Amino acid sequence: MTTPITRDDCAARDAADPLAPFRDEFVLPDGIVYLDGNSLGALPRATPARVAELVEREWGQRLIASWNDAGWWDKPRTLGAMLAPLVGAAADEVVVGDGTSANLFKTLVAALRLNPDRRVVVGEAGNFPTDLYVTQGVVELFDGASVRPADVDGGGLAAALEPGDVAVVLLSHVDYRTGALRDMAAVTELAHAHGALVVWDLCHSVGALPVALSQAGADFAVGCTYKYLNAGPGAPAFTYVARRHHDRARQPLSGWHGHARPFDFADDYEPAQGASRFLSGSQPLVAAAALEASLDLWARVDMERVRAKSLALTDLFLELTAPAGLECATPLEHARRGSQVSLRHPDGYPMVQALIARGVVGDFRAPDILRFGFAPLYLRYVDVHDAATALVEVVESGEWRDPRHARRAQVT
Amino acid sequence: MTTPITRDDCAARDAADPLAPFRDEFVLPDGIVYLDGNSLGALPRATPARVAELVEREWGQRLIASWNDAGWWDKPRTLGAMLAPLVGAAADEVVVGDGTSANLFKTLVAALRLNPDRRVVVGEAGNFPTDLYVTQGVVELFDGASVRPADVDGGGLAAALEPGDVAVVLLSHVDYRTGALRDMAAVTELAHAHGALVVWDLCHSVGALPVALSQAGADFAVGCTYKYLNAGPGAPAFTYVARRHHDRARQPLSGWHGHARPFDFADDYEPAQGASRFLSGSQPLVAAAALEASLDLWARVDMERVRAKSLALTDLFLELTAPAGLECATPLEHARRGSQVSLRHPDGYPMVQALIARGVVGDFRAPDILRFGFAPLYLRYVDVHDAATALVEVVESGEWRDPRHARRAQVT
Repeated sequence: MTTPITRDDCAARDAADPLAPFRDEFVLPDGIVYLDGNSLGALPRATPARVAELVEREWGQRLIASWNDAGWWDKPRTLGAMLAPLVGAAADEVVVGDGTSANLFKTLVAALRLNPDRRVVVGEAGNFPTDLYVTQGVVELFDGASVRPADVDGGGLAAALEPGDVAVVLLSHVDYRTGALRDMAAVTELAHAHGALVVWDLCHSVGALPVALSQAGADFAVGCTYKYLNAGPGAPAFTYVARRHHDRARQPLSGWHGHARPFDFADDYEPAQGASRFLSGSQPLVAAAALEASLDLWARVDMERVRAKSLALTDLFLELTAPAGLECATPLEHARRGSQVSLRHPDGYPMVQALIARGVVGDFRAPDILRFGFAPLYLRYVDVHDAATALVEVVESGEWRDPRHARRAQVT
Repeated sequence: MTTPITRDDCAARDAADPLAPFRDEFVLPDGIVYLDGNSLGALPRATPARVAELVEREWGQRLIASWNDAGWWDKPRTLGAMLAPLVGAAADEVVVGDGTSANLFKTLVAALRLNPDRRVVVGEAGNFPTDLYVTQGVVELFDGASVRPADVDGGGLAAALEPGDVAVVLLSHVDYRTGALRDMAAVTELAHAHGALVVWDLCHSVGALPVALSQAGADFAVGCTYKYLNAGPGAPAFTYVARRHHDRARQPLSGWHGHARPFDFADDYEPAQGASRFLSGSQPLVAAAALEASLDLWARVDMERVRAKSLALTDLFLELTAPAGLECATPLEHARRGSQVSLRHPDGYPMVQALIARGVVGDFRAPDILRFGFAPLYLRYVDVHDAATALVEVVESGEWRDPRHARRAQVT
């Protein structure tokens, strides 16, 4: 039998952690262990000043001159270039703008058009709702198109591809409920071998682990920036378009910012070169300023260290919460685990509420998932120790049965 | 012959102006007369604090709890309800979110679906590019659909509707180049009489004059909030859906936020009741905070006074710039004029640059439009006097021929 890991052991690991200094670059409320950075990342300390600079100087003092002088017009591209290394892409393959839902729509339509003899979209049963709903919205626009759900983690993808009629596969890189990480290279290769394109949803992996879109041969990807990337609630999303598709990919939200020569004010649409053709209209630059502050921070981060710490934190949490006896929904194998731990219990909702009352913030996902996200830039090993201890105490004590923790209307 | 209006006359009008106190609620750079509020509105003084509150307290301190506690989840609806009176709509007919281009896309597709036996979209030749380009993107998705351009101000709309095959008409309420204001009620009635629906683009009218969507019987409308509404660069746009279409209208960007019961996390999309079904994904809340600060200000504004002052300002500018001898592209008739004055000259570009060098900020729109917007909340009659005087001097002196004013790459 191994000796239990003590809080002092965890403090020693924090002292040796090369990422530890990043914690001071975030605002973290007192008395909270925040394990919900996979829903909304914490605020970087540099962000308020960058946002204020945009609002008060660029907008307030310079007004429309900032479209040129402050680089506003090119922000979707310059922010895309800053983000590209985090997803293993070239600078000109990523643009920032719109939300994840709109970008899913654009990339799915583009993929269907690139594969015009096929009309099946393979999705995942149980994927994040917007992925499912947008897919349904897309197939309604194409005669004869349909959705074929696949049980990806159960090995059902090959069978879904087998008929040879699949135009595109939409998959989450990390499942939002279980935290299962999919093998991007293997899945992409499998899809390509069956003549299908792949759109990757990176919402739960970007900033949590190294992503290698180009190396995996991915076709398209989308993702949000408000989870592990810490760009603020509802921050602009991004779109990746593999360079080999730059000339032919056509998305339907063909707005002014995606035009080849917008300042000709021509009557006819002509798509811009490169990933810029996936842009539509003006972007909320006040929100983009917060993303820029985050990406400035991420430029100094070694993603391999993030991954190593992420796995160490989730291993630690799994080990320390084992006495609670909850079923684990997250794969134990490192290669199949994202940066979260999901535990199952029919009374998960009041358990999460009881934890929040103790200052440990995770969340609950229906029907029975207690979900804990681990953001390696601002979480310490001692935080994980404290959170795990609290969870074991909550479950063992039965304090979650207190009526004040009972289910109520929930929005996140 | 009338006596010329002097600067002192203008100062007297400012002293008597009931809207004059609003000027102090805006940040305006020293030494500038800003006549580009129709492109990017000025910064309200209250905005930086509201944005900082969202960033530092709601996000930084309260994190995901703000989705409930700070009303984040309902912002698209609460901001829509705040905006509704400015467009003559009921609170539940307007939602805020996404950009103008995406909202044009959603409403045009919804309109085509509501009118399934017709496949022609009537647009305006020379409308703002994104309106043209998005329309092209939409018709590509519907078999047999096409665009029929109409010369609206030249009386061409009736002829375009005559064949009886028009599903929907997309029109700008105020033309971005000429400033011509269209008769919303008459046009809507004409379109309806021919079995067509109408989508109104309010980008250049909302906040500039009273808009009466419900009274006019409009079907759909979209608009941005960063021009006369002063919500900041690229601020979230809005969508109006007439209540009679709430049950049947179906838009294709069917994301999580538009679902009837989003927290069921169901696999199948079911549209929400009301205008909420036009929502898609999470919105950039940092940018939405700036919009909220603006709408707080607009709640205290009497739009009839805005309209009266707008017409007085544009009348004054037209009178005082007459000696420059430039052709006027803006209708002189009040009922057909928005809140801008557009003058034509082949050398309009360097003329605008020479004016900017003097601190009078207007803009140029190809091929020959000198465009001046008048935001009644922060412009004074003396500003108009100074701007007009400068324009006459620039034209008469020929200082615009200075090579430093020559054309260069332009983005706004």
